[in-house]
Amino acid sequence: MNYKFIFKVLGYLLLIIGVSMLPPFIISIVSKQTDMVAFGVSIALTCLIGFAFTRISVTKIRIKVKEGLAIVTLGWIFASIFGALPFYLSGSIPSFVDAFFETVSGFTTTGATIIDDIEVLPMGILFWRSFTHWIGGMGILVVAVAVLPMMGAGGFYVFKAESPGPIADKIVPKIKDTAKILYTSYIIISLVEFILLMLGGMTPFESAVHTFGTLGTGGFSTRNGSIGAFNSSYITIVISIFMVMSGTNFSLYYDVFKGKWRDVIKNSELRLYLSIIGICVLFITIDMNIHLYGDLFTSFKHSFFQVSSIITTTGYTTFDYEQWTTFSKAILFMLMFVGGSAGSTGGSIKVIRILALIKLIKREIVKILHPRAIVSIKIDDKPISDDNLLNISGFFVLYMLIFIFGSILISLEGIGLMGSTSAVAATLGNIGPGFEFVGPTHTYSQFSSFSKLLLSFFMLLGRLELFTVIALLSPKFWKN
Amino acid sequence: MNYKFIFKVLGYLLLIIGVSMLPPFIISIVSKQTDMVAFGVSIALTCLIGFAFTRISVTKIRIKVKEGLAIVTLGWIFASIFGALPFYLSGSIPSFVDAFFETVSGFTTTGATIIDDIEVLPMGILFWRSFTHWIGGMGILVVAVAVLPMMGAGGFYVFKAESPGPIADKIVPKIKDTAKILYTSYIIISLVEFILLMLGGMTPFESAVHTFGTLGTGGFSTRNGSIGAFNSSYITIVISIFMVMSGTNFSLYYDVFKGKWRDVIKNSELRLYLSIIGICVLFITIDMNIHLYGDLFTSFKHSFFQVSSIITTTGYTTFDYEQWTTFSKAILFMLMFVGGSAGSTGGSIKVIRILALIKLIKREIVKILHPRAIVSIKIDDKPISDDNLLNISGFFVLYMLIFIFGSILISLEGIGLMGSTSAVAATLGNIGPGFEFVGPTHTYSQFSSFSKLLLSFFMLLGRLELFTVIALLSPKFWKN
Repeated sequence: MNYKFIFKVLGYLLLIIGVSMLPPFIISIVSKQTDMVAFGVSIALTCLIGFAFTRISVTKIRIKVKEGLAIVTLGWIFASIFGALPFYLSGSIPSFVDAFFETVSGFTTTGATIIDDIEVLPMGILFWRSFTHWIGGMGILVVAVAVLPMMGAGGFYVFKAESPGPIADKIVPKIKDTAKILYTSYIIISLVEFILLMLGGMTPFESAVHTFGTLGTGGFSTRNGSIGAFNSSYITIVISIFMVMSGTNFSLYYDVFKGKWRDVIKNSELRLYLSIIGICVLFITIDMNIHLYGDLFTSFKHSFFQVSSIITTTGYTTFDYEQWTTFSKAILFMLMFVGGSAGSTGGSIKVIRILALIKLIKREIVKILHPRAIVSIKIDDKPISDDNLLNISGFFVLYMLIFIFGSILISLEGIGLMGSTSAVAATLGNIGPGFEFVGPTHTYSQFSSFSKLLLSFFMLLGRLELFTVIALLSPKFWKN
Repeated sequence: MNYKFIFKVLGYLLLIIGVSMLPPFIISIVSKQTDMVAFGVSIALTCLIGFAFTRISVTKIRIKVKEGLAIVTLGWIFASIFGALPFYLSGSIPSFVDAFFETVSGFTTTGATIIDDIEVLPMGILFWRSFTHWIGGMGILVVAVAVLPMMGAGGFYVFKAESPGPIADKIVPKIKDTAKILYTSYIIISLVEFILLMLGGMTPFESAVHTFGTLGTGGFSTRNGSIGAFNSSYITIVISIFMVMSGTNFSLYYDVFKGKWRDVIKNSELRLYLSIIGICVLFITIDMNIHLYGDLFTSFKHSFFQVSSIITTTGYTTFDYEQWTTFSKAILFMLMFVGGSAGSTGGSIKVIRILALIKLIKREIVKILHPRAIVSIKIDDKPISDDNLLNISGFFVLYMLIFIFGSILISLEGIGLMGSTSAVAATLGNIGPGFEFVGPTHTYSQFSSFSKLLLSFFMLLGRLELFTVIALLSPKFWKN
């Protein structure tokens, strides 16, 4: 294991984290609030340690899979530890475990919070809290990979481990260029949402914070009542649309830009993703129109928002969906296991995997009828090999196993099965709110420190798509 | 499709069902109860129609996969329709949908009941109700396959579709002989339990009924309070042990008989099965000793019983486990998705599939570290092909999809998520009781007829291991 190289890269990562604390630092200076010093100290500390790491002299610059995996997992943990400093040092979150939880939740774009009253927090802290969503959404390390020529070909391991979805597609041959394209779409869409939210009456600060939360599919807000607190149909619809856009594969925006409309329209994952949203919104709208709201537009508005929020794993709310019928709640619970598209900022299992698994089931049915038939599975005319299918199946099973065993461990808190299971589903899927004990009107503050760390671990597991982290924990990893 | 052949085989099946109603008929005559006439009419009707079907002249006796699948699915539906006659005609269950549900529940060895007070039922009816467990446990059609020379080689399709677990292992080359060996073990173990229960103070009638319920991993009792009503530690332990035995691959008993002890002890599925039971019993015993019973033996007794009952998908209870902690309930809920071993009478996903899937995950981790490594997966030195692994994965995913969509459909009853999800898990896994609305002190009587039929369908799906029934529903099946 090339530890020197790993820590050198982590050094550069810390420098990026330190620099990204500058915008909230400026806000704290401008707003003259108490968090000024905390940001100054955090930036100094992060950059200093980061700088020290970058001074490590590396003789071998060859990087293999193991180094790639270690860089990604340690990178996210380091980012969360140093990213937690402003919360802790400013006294906004007095416990470091809590501050760590909040930061992991931010970077992994989960949006689960341990803060019971966010409205009393200083602006710089609120900005930083949501800015972590925006940074984490596209991958912290993708930036490092893109700017560090020293990563060489080995950077692909990092890119692959950090990018969401089973197949890491480079849009263009070079990772550096791919990252640039993705970030350009990301920034443009962010700017559009920012402007649209301002037009809806949000302050520039609120618009920025909620743009970060939407684009990263995170879910941190400036209000205790989340998006519902703005009481605006316009804002509800705008954020719904941008959540759906953030759960879409970002390479499709490049296709649109290149004029390849046909490819976009024919994209199977996009079609399935939009169909799931459409069907769920339809059912919940009808159900809620009958049983709760008695008004079609209100029913549509809340169901479109909540379906988009959960499937994209954002976690914003406009309404306490605990008041919904069991049927509508069951649909939401199911959506927690769907997630966004590959190459989006959404988490959970992801639509492309579900598409591949449905095709696998169809093939098994054909095989029963024609035991000797050889049927190859294709998605958008690209064949999916049996190796890929086994990997996707393994992912699905592992996801379920972690969900089940995680729920059993969390149930030791004695909070009821719905609370335990949805807390694990909501952290592992990077969603945020769940049901009952972690429902939309609750926070994660009441969990023990042990559970908070465990749930933080689930957030990391989910964001890094299980295998990256699990491989690091396997004894085989540490054997030479 | 060779319809003539299919109905001819179904005719023989109905004759078997008719004949198997003779023991309860005799009991109703001896006990001089009101169900006498109902049994007489049911037997006459079943045998008459069965006989008529067997008279169909079949020209082609070639049977293919499609005919095999149709025979199995239709066979179980026919058996349940005619098996429901005694309940309906005797007035014990006034609604035919309810009687059908109860019979499907019996044959599929689920043990979910719609009868709120079973203690008022006549003895013949109670006997028949549990006898269906015993018949269904080993497979209704295996008998037909074994005794019908006309099935020829095609009988293997039926045997394969009806036998539990992913790989239909013929212990000896001929299905007929395999069936004989399995039934011999089945009968011997039944006799031993019958005697042991009588020694514990049960009447011969009660001993027989509970032996049927145990061996078939069904769960129908003669008491509203299930096994708890007998208030006997001896009976609790005896039934626990026989439940565990019934969830074990029956071919292992043949190995024991042949003196192949080493094979039995080294059997990976058996080891995993017993380990899961051991670990779960240990955790629940500790948890319940602290939080509820305050006595180690009582804690062990109830936890051993309940763990065995749920993992083997029997569904007997000695205690209202709804009073347990969330932790212990979460473990029970997880066990609903484990199930018995392949080649046992237990339902659900089954230990061998879980073993294969764990090995798949391990291989995927190795593949991350060594992308070019070729690692073959073996269970007991037998390699499991990628085709097999994909089939098992497909099964797992389909099981979860049916569970999720089934839960959403059942949630339309408005009974809460725990009730909806556990009702589907308990029927699909052929277990019986679940949580809350379908908890151990409840029955399925309060569901609408639509839900009762849907849940009956899930029981059949689970018993016939999904693909057999699903293939029949696919449009491809009906294309020529």
